[in-house]
Amino acid sequence: MHKVTFLPQQKVITVPPGTNLLAASALAGVPVEGNCGGKGACGKCKVRIVEGDRKEPTAAESKGLSADELANGWVLACQREVCGCTVAEIQAARDACNRKTTLHRAASVIEPEPSVEKIALKLSRPSIEDQTSDLERLRQALSRQELSVNLKLLAALPGALRRRRFAVTAVISDQQLIAVEPGDSSGGIFGLAFDIGTTTLMSSLIDLSSGAVLAVTAATNPQNVFGSDVVSRITHASKSPEYLTALQQKVIETLNIMIAGLSAQTGVRTDEIYEAVVVGNTTMSHLFLGIDPAHLALAPFIPAFQKALELDAADLGLAMNRFGRVTVLPNIAGYVGSDTVGVILATDLDRRSDPCLAVDIGTNGELVLAANGRILACSTAAGPAFEGAQIRYGMRAADGAIEAVDIYNDDLKLQVIGGLKAHGICGSGLIDAAAALLKAGAIEPSGRLVNPETDALKLPASIRQRIRRGAGGFEFILADASQTSTGSDLVLTQGDLRELQLAKGAICAGFKVLLREAGITSEDVECVLLAGAFGNYIRVESALAIGLLPALPPEKIIPVGNAAGDGACMALISKSVRRRAFALPKRVEHVELSTRQDFQEEFINALAFPG
Amino acid sequence: MHKVTFLPQQKVITVPPGTNLLAASALAGVPVEGNCGGKGACGKCKVRIVEGDRKEPTAAESKGLSADELANGWVLACQREVCGCTVAEIQAARDACNRKTTLHRAASVIEPEPSVEKIALKLSRPSIEDQTSDLERLRQALSRQELSVNLKLLAALPGALRRRRFAVTAVISDQQLIAVEPGDSSGGIFGLAFDIGTTTLMSSLIDLSSGAVLAVTAATNPQNVFGSDVVSRITHASKSPEYLTALQQKVIETLNIMIAGLSAQTGVRTDEIYEAVVVGNTTMSHLFLGIDPAHLALAPFIPAFQKALELDAADLGLAMNRFGRVTVLPNIAGYVGSDTVGVILATDLDRRSDPCLAVDIGTNGELVLAANGRILACSTAAGPAFEGAQIRYGMRAADGAIEAVDIYNDDLKLQVIGGLKAHGICGSGLIDAAAALLKAGAIEPSGRLVNPETDALKLPASIRQRIRRGAGGFEFILADASQTSTGSDLVLTQGDLRELQLAKGAICAGFKVLLREAGITSEDVECVLLAGAFGNYIRVESALAIGLLPALPPEKIIPVGNAAGDGACMALISKSVRRRAFALPKRVEHVELSTRQDFQEEFINALAFPG
Repeated sequence: MHKVTFLPQQKVITVPPGTNLLAASALAGVPVEGNCGGKGACGKCKVRIVEGDRKEPTAAESKGLSADELANGWVLACQREVCGCTVAEIQAARDACNRKTTLHRAASVIEPEPSVEKIALKLSRPSIEDQTSDLERLRQALSRQELSVNLKLLAALPGALRRRRFAVTAVISDQQLIAVEPGDSSGGIFGLAFDIGTTTLMSSLIDLSSGAVLAVTAATNPQNVFGSDVVSRITHASKSPEYLTALQQKVIETLNIMIAGLSAQTGVRTDEIYEAVVVGNTTMSHLFLGIDPAHLALAPFIPAFQKALELDAADLGLAMNRFGRVTVLPNIAGYVGSDTVGVILATDLDRRSDPCLAVDIGTNGELVLAANGRILACSTAAGPAFEGAQIRYGMRAADGAIEAVDIYNDDLKLQVIGGLKAHGICGSGLIDAAAALLKAGAIEPSGRLVNPETDALKLPASIRQRIRRGAGGFEFILADASQTSTGSDLVLTQGDLRELQLAKGAICAGFKVLLREAGITSEDVECVLLAGAFGNYIRVESALAIGLLPALPPEKIIPVGNAAGDGACMALISKSVRRRAFALPKRVEHVELSTRQDFQEEFINALAFPG
Repeated sequence: MHKVTFLPQQKVITVPPGTNLLAASALAGVPVEGNCGGKGACGKCKVRIVEGDRKEPTAAESKGLSADELANGWVLACQREVCGCTVAEIQAARDACNRKTTLHRAASVIEPEPSVEKIALKLSRPSIEDQTSDLERLRQALSRQELSVNLKLLAALPGALRRRRFAVTAVISDQQLIAVEPGDSSGGIFGLAFDIGTTTLMSSLIDLSSGAVLAVTAATNPQNVFGSDVVSRITHASKSPEYLTALQQKVIETLNIMIAGLSAQTGVRTDEIYEAVVVGNTTMSHLFLGIDPAHLALAPFIPAFQKALELDAADLGLAMNRFGRVTVLPNIAGYVGSDTVGVILATDLDRRSDPCLAVDIGTNGELVLAANGRILACSTAAGPAFEGAQIRYGMRAADGAIEAVDIYNDDLKLQVIGGLKAHGICGSGLIDAAAALLKAGAIEPSGRLVNPETDALKLPASIRQRIRRGAGGFEFILADASQTSTGSDLVLTQGDLRELQLAKGAICAGFKVLLREAGITSEDVECVLLAGAFGNYIRVESALAIGLLPALPPEKIIPVGNAAGDGACMALISKSVRRRAFALPKRVEHVELSTRQDFQEEFINALAFPG
């Protein structure tokens, strides 16, 4: 066994030989991000070896890391097997660290009313006068004649009762007996909330008796090696049943590593976890369940199921109590999934009276409008541009990402996460950059970068000279080689701007169609809630400046954090909330944008930046 | 592949190399009996090779078969691998052949009302205007919003619907979707009734739309290699979880071979079988389910469960549709199982007003008394004497068994099944023999065989000279060497008579205790129903003569065949009957005999034969 200490969290974990640092970090509950399924291709799972094995860089490391980084001991976690005692420093993902706070907030406002109950019992002992069977004895003590029980659990019941002389704790979920624990263990009931994002998996371990979030962990969705968007995943899954199973297993395995990490962090044994609630977009839910999502990719985009599903943990292979129950919250439509249901729960959109819009910007963009007692939802193919994909130097919001851009006194100011040299640009930085360049006149409302030689004469020289001709047209130098971790210029390309326009145009057009359907205008909207971690970091002024959101007073625009995941936690903690979720597929009106003429027109209109 | 033809049924089956004749017979649906799990030890699986391989006898055959039999081509089926083309003649078990008739009778009086429904549907096709999910579309067409569905079936649903352009047949059991078949397959619904006896497994394949019994097959319970009574099975199962699993698997494997045989006989595919109903004594039910029956063997004899269990076929590994449902009927107590529930259903004991007693004599003897609106049940440890076990020349009712014995004109008359030379004596023969010898004065009421030299002077010489001194006391020669297939004398020993006394004493004493509990006397009893195949062949006069049944007019004693199995068939065919079964554990009052002083006294009184 080998020992690794991860900094700055000071998490120590002992792992068997052959474990790489990426897996070890997940097991320690401080997962390092990665994008390529451990192939050394994405270069994102950087850690710095502070103590221990300093071998020669692998080919992947030589390619993926700068000379400086290599010199300073940075390695790719997926390339390094743990050996001896190692101390490794992690470049933390900002999202994951901050989400914990959000979740605590959400959980704290929910009265615990878990679906799982634990009831400590002292059963009367059987005798010749009372030959009641073991199961009936338990049912009678619980006053639940109809309690159902899994065969394997029934088989273990006689031993379980007698080992503790009939003093046991019954664990019940709805009308199902899911465990018999020895003695009185009624104190601890634990559950997991999973938010299966196309890009990121989030897992929260919750004490269901108090509603307290004990630990949260995030990991990259390992399916991303098959493409960053849902359509590429669907295409891959549809190729063969084996591929579908492989996609499912990848997620389950990573969730299991996350569960192991949460368990190690908190001391909660995995077999004490009796319940899980899962949200995700409809494709992710299908893949999680091993259901071929092929028909989601083709018109008319039909999901296999819509209502919530309640399953046995063992059927999914989740590393919790094998008799535990897993609830997948309902989806609304092929592209409005249970993650949106989670957003509605967390934002109370199903109980509000004022017109209110929630926008969840992740790999896709889902919009929900509550107005006049109706709830309307649609999905826009915003693409993963805001998560760094399809942007030349795009990256997720982690150390080294440009997260804010300003032009102040004719000078470009960058804010880089961690105060490091710039390594890339994340979604909020991208929006900021576009807004700043638009304001300065370096971008035209059409989205075109101005030609520095002919059109940009009015620009301050310090800005103008950052525009240069690149391979794919003009590009804007955000940071020159001296300011970057890579030692080469970090630029924003014309192509990047086009991606941004498509993304923001789709969201804006979707918003307008929903307003029209509801018969209201944007002036009627009382608030716009920005869900998704991204919503926390976006600068509202910049989002308004580029027309990502319709023109509204900035104070009406409120970030609400990872509302999808919060909704999953809430539904885990409270049966009442879960019932609200179960009612949503009937209540929410899905607006299919793909075939609507008015959406196409709004989309085209919304591509340009506001003049 | 090798071909075997079984006579007289003319069943032909092709089997892979290495298959022995015993397995081949089961696969062909004409299972040969055996008692020792294929070890060649019991000598019961005799078949005669009419054509094909005639190798030298194995050691087991030389020991288990007479010289005559060996010369005539008899072999032990478990000892012979099928090779080339073989024609084998079976020594048919009379029970199995005759049961079919009984079952037809039982099934024909039940109005089919199967729990499984098949509903042919033509679903509307999805469109952009109607994006209802596949599962909701099905639920809506069936008007069953709460229909639940197994995850694997849900995963297959999108493909199943589209392959047949949304024309499918939904198969539903209660509120659960268990299959989606292509096109309109609503015609055929098939189910299995299993009667898991300690000695014999019975399987019936039934067309649930008509209630017709399509085929019936019987096989020896392969667990019998671990002992012929339930207590030895429990002892074995309790030694280790692996042993328990092995006992379960042995039964499941044999049932699966029987299912394959039923399928081959009828052309019904195993995946068209969606339902099974199981009865058995409480120990057999526990073992079938893989539940340790240890606590059944020790006072206070507590079963793990009592109410009916409804399970997935896949969880048990039964070779029917994997999403099919298996219902194990409820048991009443540790020694009054679902087989007794079957008897009550088949004899209408829960709906009769006249005092009526049902006796099921199998490996154990269960008694049920319906009187004054109450149903009382008890179990007596009658032991398997009536099935030939623990009797020196005991055998089951198959070709070669002495089935009736008479003394007529001072001469002993034997009736041998199949008109062959005598090979052993079965239960009905044993009772007859005891009754005849008692009447002739060769047995004293105490059960003692008279001493031919001192006490038997009044006996006719032809009878007296059949009594001789054997190793364990006196014995009575039923057939001399010239009349037997073995070439040696076939005797009834003093020990055999003692076994018979214990068995009949227990049943008779149980009967008396039930009458006392019900507050009636034997004169009040309107009828005594003899369940079990054995009840069909017993001579009522003989049973009365030895005091197996209390003194009642013979016309009140009615054989009803394999009522336990009939009850299973009825519960399979009709939901209403099943509901009656489900209600019985609450309704039937179990009378525990083991600790009752009055039972012990009655038992001692009942050991003697009537004077």
